[in-house]
Amino acid sequence: MSYVKELALKAKEAAKTLSLLSSEEKNQGLLGIARQLLMDAEDILRANEMDLTKGEQEGMQPSLLDRLALTPARIGDMVEGIRQVMDLDDPVGRVMESRVLPNGLAIDKVRVPMGVLGMIYEARPNVTVDACALGLKAGSSVLLRGGSSALNSNRALVQTIKKGLSGTPIPEEAVQFVDTDERGAVDEMLRLNGFLDLIIPRGGAGLIRRVVETATVPVIETGVGNCHLYVDQDARGTMALDILLNAKCQRYGVCNAAETLLVHRAIAPSWLPGAIKELADRGVEVRGCPATVQLVPGIKPAEESDWATEFLAPILAVKVVEDLNEAILHIQKYGTGHSESIITDNVGAAEEFLKRVDAAAVYHNASTRFTDGFQFGFGAEIGISTQKLHARGPMGLAELTSYKYVIRGTGQIRL
Amino acid sequence: MSYVKELALKAKEAAKTLSLLSSEEKNQGLLGIARQLLMDAEDILRANEMDLTKGEQEGMQPSLLDRLALTPARIGDMVEGIRQVMDLDDPVGRVMESRVLPNGLAIDKVRVPMGVLGMIYEARPNVTVDACALGLKAGSSVLLRGGSSALNSNRALVQTIKKGLSGTPIPEEAVQFVDTDERGAVDEMLRLNGFLDLIIPRGGAGLIRRVVETATVPVIETGVGNCHLYVDQDARGTMALDILLNAKCQRYGVCNAAETLLVHRAIAPSWLPGAIKELADRGVEVRGCPATVQLVPGIKPAEESDWATEFLAPILAVKVVEDLNEAILHIQKYGTGHSESIITDNVGAAEEFLKRVDAAAVYHNASTRFTDGFQFGFGAEIGISTQKLHARGPMGLAELTSYKYVIRGTGQIRL
Repeated sequence: MSYVKELALKAKEAAKTLSLLSSEEKNQGLLGIARQLLMDAEDILRANEMDLTKGEQEGMQPSLLDRLALTPARIGDMVEGIRQVMDLDDPVGRVMESRVLPNGLAIDKVRVPMGVLGMIYEARPNVTVDACALGLKAGSSVLLRGGSSALNSNRALVQTIKKGLSGTPIPEEAVQFVDTDERGAVDEMLRLNGFLDLIIPRGGAGLIRRVVETATVPVIETGVGNCHLYVDQDARGTMALDILLNAKCQRYGVCNAAETLLVHRAIAPSWLPGAIKELADRGVEVRGCPATVQLVPGIKPAEESDWATEFLAPILAVKVVEDLNEAILHIQKYGTGHSESIITDNVGAAEEFLKRVDAAAVYHNASTRFTDGFQFGFGAEIGISTQKLHARGPMGLAELTSYKYVIRGTGQIRL
Repeated sequence: MSYVKELALKAKEAAKTLSLLSSEEKNQGLLGIARQLLMDAEDILRANEMDLTKGEQEGMQPSLLDRLALTPARIGDMVEGIRQVMDLDDPVGRVMESRVLPNGLAIDKVRVPMGVLGMIYEARPNVTVDACALGLKAGSSVLLRGGSSALNSNRALVQTIKKGLSGTPIPEEAVQFVDTDERGAVDEMLRLNGFLDLIIPRGGAGLIRRVVETATVPVIETGVGNCHLYVDQDARGTMALDILLNAKCQRYGVCNAAETLLVHRAIAPSWLPGAIKELADRGVEVRGCPATVQLVPGIKPAEESDWATEFLAPILAVKVVEDLNEAILHIQKYGTGHSESIITDNVGAAEEFLKRVDAAAVYHNASTRFTDGFQFGFGAEIGISTQKLHARGPMGLAELTSYKYVIRGTGQIRL
């Protein structure tokens, strides 16, 4: 049996115990992890230092180095995150629906753990801790494969997590870490049907595409957000500007940031030049359609590829549209099904937008930046799904579970 | 653009219209199909005759010929099936959850259509009609690929369906049929990410495996059922026998039929020989473990592969187990996660079984044959899922939908 399959088998065996634990027992395990993280903080920071040094030597970008870096405060955030997950209601065992058939059979639809979750992710080592906390609380084992740039950090974190679990009801084997740099290990993981029940990739578009194309295990696509803000002719200019600056500029590298601005041609002449100036003041590069370039001379013309790009940077594509319909068609063509917003005081236009735009989150008069498990009040999230199967939008504990039908009879047979 | 991609694109375009229709409008389309089926019955039967003749010439098995055959009564059943789907509540637009955040944002989680469903299936032509009725009512277009042995029947049915839709609110293009025998067409269909939102394979284990291994579009695995009946030491013998005969013998070729009988060693000597005699009287071949062979001399010994086989035939594997735990471990090892039943009057044993056995449907004192959308009261089903993602067990209308978050604000930005 290969190394990766062996890990998955251990995770699967441990899931049999884990799936039967009460919420209190699972919380004891999480508490063990939280405590151990605080005790081992120095070791973890030392391991992280090795990754950072290697990253710097290899010329890693500052933004990636920032994602990779751990500090005492970030470890404190991890611990706080675990405590928040402990406070979340446990979905496992919840009866979702009940019915009694005329023949007396009592059918309950009951939430159950997924089994074994595979996580494949890139630089951020905090995903290691988040995935463990959410996965274990949801009653599932986790098989983790982090980015090779964070290998030392993740190895140290997993060691700490396992140490923290020892002596608690959660078996240490419920957390497995693919401790190798080999690319083949990921490909094998993606095809472990019968061992893994679900794979969640977290990272850039390239990683997600590779996982979707290779996996035979069910996958939930996450994260890629080419989000649009549509400023309708009946928008209030100040509200539109506030939301634009929030959606584009509050943070650039996040999946729920706006990447394209669509503006109704009736409001463009009066509103767009001022909005573009505000963007320029904040260092945002605008790439405009011909009408935009005409309104604001000197703007860089947008290329076709700009409409399809998730910049994750201070760049915004801007297009003037004929009407609401053209805005919706543009989003249908280029959107990634993440978050889309319309700014308007026209309720009819808003409702048409909310109905016709097919995305995980559709907004009226609000910033796309709210698409987030914490913001939505789920308490935590393992990622944001951009596919339609199983879970869409921010995924919390419930989205990490499955269900089964429990049928209690008194000797019923089918006629 | 290839033939298959072109079909999928048409389906995707049609879904934009279909997804916005009211229940009444969708029911008008379904009524059109039902009426046209009755009008075109003769044409459909003639086309089916061609498939049957070809099947006979090629030496198709009688059981497969029976699945393939249409009769006026079976067309009547299709029409009745459509009327039942018309009566079902429309899940689309249903608000599943609502919350208002402290900042005033109102978040609704709303059921929405999936988009485009791909169906890949084998001999039964009625799947063509069932999939259209359920898919369209759920607001999604369907791209159909039936078995080549039913090509003429399916082509005629699709022609009728499209004729029936004409003049109704549902666009004809919402139903697309891959009218070719080429195997490559299926492979292409399985990789149409961005065009298809979901693929549901219906057929034998070979088809399901091929789809899971090739598809990059999300798939829901259906159907393969290696179902177990466990007769505990505290079972009532007559109830256990009634349920055994129902679960094994009522129909042999169905996924929810029992394929392995597990018997507690304390009850085996008194109960098993009589049960095996009843099975033999019904023409069922028993393949037993050594203890079974010892109890009932002359029984064929089971081979390792028998425990893992979905016979779909009058064959039953029988194993005497030490205790409840061994029964559960056996099911964990060989089960396909479909339907599993325990017969016992011991409530503690029953609850342990219901909790520890990880399957779509777990039964206490009832036949596994109840795992079925109609039996469960869902009104209809597109298949029975044996995976844990998205839907498990019988899939009705709701399981063919997704959801989105609709967020209404008054200018909120993220702080």
